[in-house]
Amino acid sequence: MKFGGTSMAGTERIRRVAGIVKRQQEAGHEVAVVVSAMAGETDRLVTFCREANALYDPAEYDVVVAAGEQITSGLLALTLQAMGCKARSWLGWQLPVRTDDAYAKARIEDIDSGALLASMAAGEIAVIPGFQGLSPDGRVTTLGRGGSDTSAVAVAAAIGADRCDIYTDVDGVYTTDPRIVAKARKLKNVTYEEMLELASVGSKVLQTRSVSLAMKEKVRVQVLSSFIDETAPAADTIPGTMIVSDEELEGLDMERQVITGIAADKNEAKVTLTRVADRPGAVATIFGPLAEANINVDMIIQNIAKDKGETDVTFTVPAADLLRTQALLEERKEAIGYYRLISDDKVAKISVVGVGMRSHAGVAATMFKALAERGINIQAISTSEIKVSVLIDADEVELAVRVLHTAYGLDAE
Amino acid sequence: MKFGGTSMAGTERIRRVAGIVKRQQEAGHEVAVVVSAMAGETDRLVTFCREANALYDPAEYDVVVAAGEQITSGLLALTLQAMGCKARSWLGWQLPVRTDDAYAKARIEDIDSGALLASMAAGEIAVIPGFQGLSPDGRVTTLGRGGSDTSAVAVAAAIGADRCDIYTDVDGVYTTDPRIVAKARKLKNVTYEEMLELASVGSKVLQTRSVSLAMKEKVRVQVLSSFIDETAPAADTIPGTMIVSDEELEGLDMERQVITGIAADKNEAKVTLTRVADRPGAVATIFGPLAEANINVDMIIQNIAKDKGETDVTFTVPAADLLRTQALLEERKEAIGYYRLISDDKVAKISVVGVGMRSHAGVAATMFKALAERGINIQAISTSEIKVSVLIDADEVELAVRVLHTAYGLDAE
Repeated sequence: MKFGGTSMAGTERIRRVAGIVKRQQEAGHEVAVVVSAMAGETDRLVTFCREANALYDPAEYDVVVAAGEQITSGLLALTLQAMGCKARSWLGWQLPVRTDDAYAKARIEDIDSGALLASMAAGEIAVIPGFQGLSPDGRVTTLGRGGSDTSAVAVAAAIGADRCDIYTDVDGVYTTDPRIVAKARKLKNVTYEEMLELASVGSKVLQTRSVSLAMKEKVRVQVLSSFIDETAPAADTIPGTMIVSDEELEGLDMERQVITGIAADKNEAKVTLTRVADRPGAVATIFGPLAEANINVDMIIQNIAKDKGETDVTFTVPAADLLRTQALLEERKEAIGYYRLISDDKVAKISVVGVGMRSHAGVAATMFKALAERGINIQAISTSEIKVSVLIDADEVELAVRVLHTAYGLDAE
Repeated sequence: MKFGGTSMAGTERIRRVAGIVKRQQEAGHEVAVVVSAMAGETDRLVTFCREANALYDPAEYDVVVAAGEQITSGLLALTLQAMGCKARSWLGWQLPVRTDDAYAKARIEDIDSGALLASMAAGEIAVIPGFQGLSPDGRVTTLGRGGSDTSAVAVAAAIGADRCDIYTDVDGVYTTDPRIVAKARKLKNVTYEEMLELASVGSKVLQTRSVSLAMKEKVRVQVLSSFIDETAPAADTIPGTMIVSDEELEGLDMERQVITGIAADKNEAKVTLTRVADRPGAVATIFGPLAEANINVDMIIQNIAKDKGETDVTFTVPAADLLRTQALLEERKEAIGYYRLISDDKVAKISVVGVGMRSHAGVAATMFKALAERGINIQAISTSEIKVSVLIDADEVELAVRVLHTAYGLDAE
């Protein structure tokens, strides 16, 4: 079980969490719990670090920020004990959760599960601070913001858990953002690949890394609301969204829709370079420097060469990287050989995602037709095996999502 | 060097501390720094623990409260780095600081100094969170409130430091409380035994355990103000109070006063049992149960037996334990065999302390005469080799301290 910062914010909320955990134990489960820091605490500690040293040493930063989860893990163990449960905390260095030495953004390499399994078998609830680990040098590491989801999946994999229940602010994964489409439906099941595509295009239910890890380790992850009544039945009977493999999904859900969900991402910006020389290697002079600067280029369109062997190249980058992108390309204007650089951050990417796409033709065509009927102009297209994305004007996002939700038959009755 | 919670409370104050530390390094010293949590932080964490579980598991309590010093140690390392120093934090479990398993009040058994010394020799300033250690079971321990002074002395002993500078809210040890006696003088030197006696009678400059440890390990401890200007010369030249052995003191301070300091303690209460049977074993029936209840009896007076083989027994206990003391003695009224129990918490203990007492007669006589001349009634007396204490009415404390300060020639010119 994993609880986020909102669930751990203060004594009263921790008591609610303890109630939910205790109920699982009473239902006959051996339970390990991964916790985040209290909401706001990590921000407070990060601010201290920045004030102390703007160019901070990530190893010392990790010493400071890991304290937030240490505190909540001890407090949840104390609260469970007050409710009559046996419980103890296991800090990152105690298990240990071995990571690489990329301080402040470490990756988990291995978790020793021996002591943990013995403690759980003896009836103790194990409480584990998320987000933290131990470097090969024996120092504290952290996994980067939101890393507690990844901690939870890694612990579940290490102990061979039947399930990893991640309690969040929402009660599951929806066909699209319910704030945009009132008829959005909660999904009973979604595959790892779908979840990854949805996460990468703006559906922020789980940290992407945690989903990749769950897929690799075959951990069944369930997304649940932490605001359920703690006196309700144990989570087994509360319908969240289960994230499963393709194979498991086939057994579960024969009458599945072709499209599982629709996501919108407003954090993209579009860049066009006009009249680029249409010769081998021209594209490399554009995208090589961006890759070196760690700027993630997403959609790319190269118009068919017009006269004079010239072409326009359009692509998208994260909006946060737009200024750096412009600077890099202007520096290299001569080397690349283009006429004008045009950028636009008033764009949005709409993606339809579904494993059903593999066996159904016409998904993209349905999308283009539905958008065209409402006069929504498509500026760029990209596809993967289970996803079709289009770039449109940012002002048309809500309309486009609603139109597509209906077009793919996702609206709730 | 050790800095307390007031010195570590926030980014700006930590920057001042870093300035003081850096100056020591620039003066050619290898430096290890022990830090407390930010002022108020430990109280915040203790409150969380109490709210979570009134009868808290001390092992989990330690996980929570140790986080405060972890945070400040990382922040001081970051701040020193920002000033161009090499610095790194060493958490209790990393050195490790080995303690027993008395969670929440652990005692340090041993500190591995190898890695620490190597790091310091390489020019790194070592930053060590005070108050925390590692139990034989590999779990976090803490040393009890105020334990960072003890951590500092233990680290100084482990690395064979020339000196342990403890920076506090005051700038040294005074002949008496300067808030009571304006003419109190700061002492250049004081012995371990004197410091212990002064601490035990209410002069709260250092934690008593830290002084005992310094005496045992022969660590030279200096008490200094952390509010000195960080641009001032390094601490070598700032006169704090040095705590030294008898032998060292003799070399330093030939013209020493007989009395070093005067302390007042208002946290005592007086209990009198009247008409106790004057027979062998009677006193054991009184003090046995109090000892079992962990109530620390200090002064004891047994009046000379009057007629009928009866006597009055008067003694003092900490005021906080008075109610428990009364309850215990009333339960046992028959077994002890006394007539009345009279208690008084409007009393105070005044102590004069000085190693010079060993070679000078008449110290107690001077005390009694000076108090008698001002009409101050002595209710009880106790003595040790280097201390004379008297119990008086609480209302007369300030007067008594001033009178004695003059009588022993301690007033500043």
